[in-house]
Amino acid sequence: MPDEFAFLTALRAIATHPAAAGLADDTAVLDVVAGRLILTSDTMVESVHYRPHDPADSIGWKLAAVNLSDLAAKGATPTGCLLNYALSGDADWDRAFLAGLDEALTRFAMPLLGGDTVAVPQGAPRSLTLTAIGTAQPNTPLRTGARPGDALWVTGQIGSAGFGPDGEPRDLARYLRPQPRLAAGQALAPVATAMMDVSDGLLIDARRLAEASRVAITIDLDAVPLALPGLDPLAAATAGDDYELLFTLPAGIEPPVAATRIGVAGVGTGLTLTAGGDPVPLPERLGYRHGG
Amino acid sequence: MPDEFAFLTALRAIATHPAAAGLADDTAVLDVVAGRLILTSDTMVESVHYRPHDPADSIGWKLAAVNLSDLAAKGATPTGCLLNYALSGDADWDRAFLAGLDEALTRFAMPLLGGDTVAVPQGAPRSLTLTAIGTAQPNTPLRTGARPGDALWVTGQIGSAGFGPDGEPRDLARYLRPQPRLAAGQALAPVATAMMDVSDGLLIDARRLAEASRVAITIDLDAVPLALPGLDPLAAATAGDDYELLFTLPAGIEPPVAATRIGVAGVGTGLTLTAGGDPVPLPERLGYRHGG
Repeated sequence: MPDEFAFLTALRAIATHPAAAGLADDTAVLDVVAGRLILTSDTMVESVHYRPHDPADSIGWKLAAVNLSDLAAKGATPTGCLLNYALSGDADWDRAFLAGLDEALTRFAMPLLGGDTVAVPQGAPRSLTLTAIGTAQPNTPLRTGARPGDALWVTGQIGSAGFGPDGEPRDLARYLRPQPRLAAGQALAPVATAMMDVSDGLLIDARRLAEASRVAITIDLDAVPLALPGLDPLAAATAGDDYELLFTLPAGIEPPVAATRIGVAGVGTGLTLTAGGDPVPLPERLGYRHGG
Repeated sequence: MPDEFAFLTALRAIATHPAAAGLADDTAVLDVVAGRLILTSDTMVESVHYRPHDPADSIGWKLAAVNLSDLAAKGATPTGCLLNYALSGDADWDRAFLAGLDEALTRFAMPLLGGDTVAVPQGAPRSLTLTAIGTAQPNTPLRTGARPGDALWVTGQIGSAGFGPDGEPRDLARYLRPQPRLAAGQALAPVATAMMDVSDGLLIDARRLAEASRVAITIDLDAVPLALPGLDPLAAATAGDDYELLFTLPAGIEPPVAATRIGVAGVGTGLTLTAGGDPVPLPERLGYRHGG
């Protein structure tokens, strides 16, 4: 398996953190101080979570970024990660994937500590898993913490990474290389009552927050910060892949980072939309579900 | 996706640990004391790491057991795990898998804390990942710690889980439900200079230990504890799937658990075999490699 040997050599060149011990062991050995750990893991499957023709380096970046985005939503600081990689039988693809992964890990200071490299049957879609560990403050904002009366906020703009009517991402760079909001998450964690990242679509993720917190959420579509002029707010709010932070604050509290107030939590259940002060029926599809 | 809904409901019923927070979040939130964490992750791919007709409950058990075995080799106590699951489109298979997984997690006290559930394209082989976390003592035996003069030991018996000439595992129960040696690992960790589990085969794993520790290892095939009478020692030592512990102790030190002395580490590199005091050529295949 010359491909595997080359891949493991390239992997060792990335895994320079002492806890990785040169990947000479089956395990990573990490000394920690007392405190709170955040653990998250995301799997990306070819043709399900990305298009087979998406550049390999962007898949490496994105696999790191989606996990970092989950850490960001808890206000966590990355500690390290484990990579479970399916050898593709295409050494160029493997090499480009690792380069993109390494770029994201370096950019966001998340060392590679270990994982597993496996062969897959010829022709099988790639399945790539990254597990990330971070440290957070005790008062971690979960999805469950929103209370009636809280305001709903979102960082950045919504809708740029979604697919336009031509079937292509509206902003290819944002689609290929999402930016986890680590600094914003760390600033927001002490004040947010609930927080999560927008991965599958603003509406579907807001409804998940409402369900987890057992509150009703009303979103004013006119207030949704659109990534591109002329974008339909409903299209933007159901597109997904934004990786912005969706969070609630007690009424009257201003966020410590740039963000937009888009709604409110109340007594009850479910998600309600308004535009121009009038109710808007929920679209049939609230976001982009990849299964889980 | 009714299958996914049923699966997530079943998953929530297993994930009762507070750190899992009912799987309502994308992350697990784990409070830890200061100390050493062991992190390990294994991926099992259908038709590569197991046979498509192996019972689903045994795959659930095995995915937990192979990770627990890596923790055992560091003398670690399980803290928890994350499951990355590929929905198979076969609700019965999913249910049986979870039952077997739950059995192993309960038996070895490793709570499920989170993970990811994804859909895969129709007909794609299942790819299943478990990431395990444990706590260990500071003096953790790695693969790298063997020194010239150390004796090489192995727990239990070797060769039972391997495939016989009929293409079937010699001991189906051992093949389907490997037993991680957690208690033995915890007893051995304070005295072992190096330790790893035997997953791919005694010979290939012993050579990995020799390489990582930069020592030469000589194994006396006559001393290898055979799982079945009449088993050829070379067949046993290259079969894999034993999940026993392979470790080194300074000369003259007896292990605190039942184990067999099978060899010695010396100055140099590589693996050498003897039988009846005479050198035996290395077989072409030292074990069972699944890629990585």
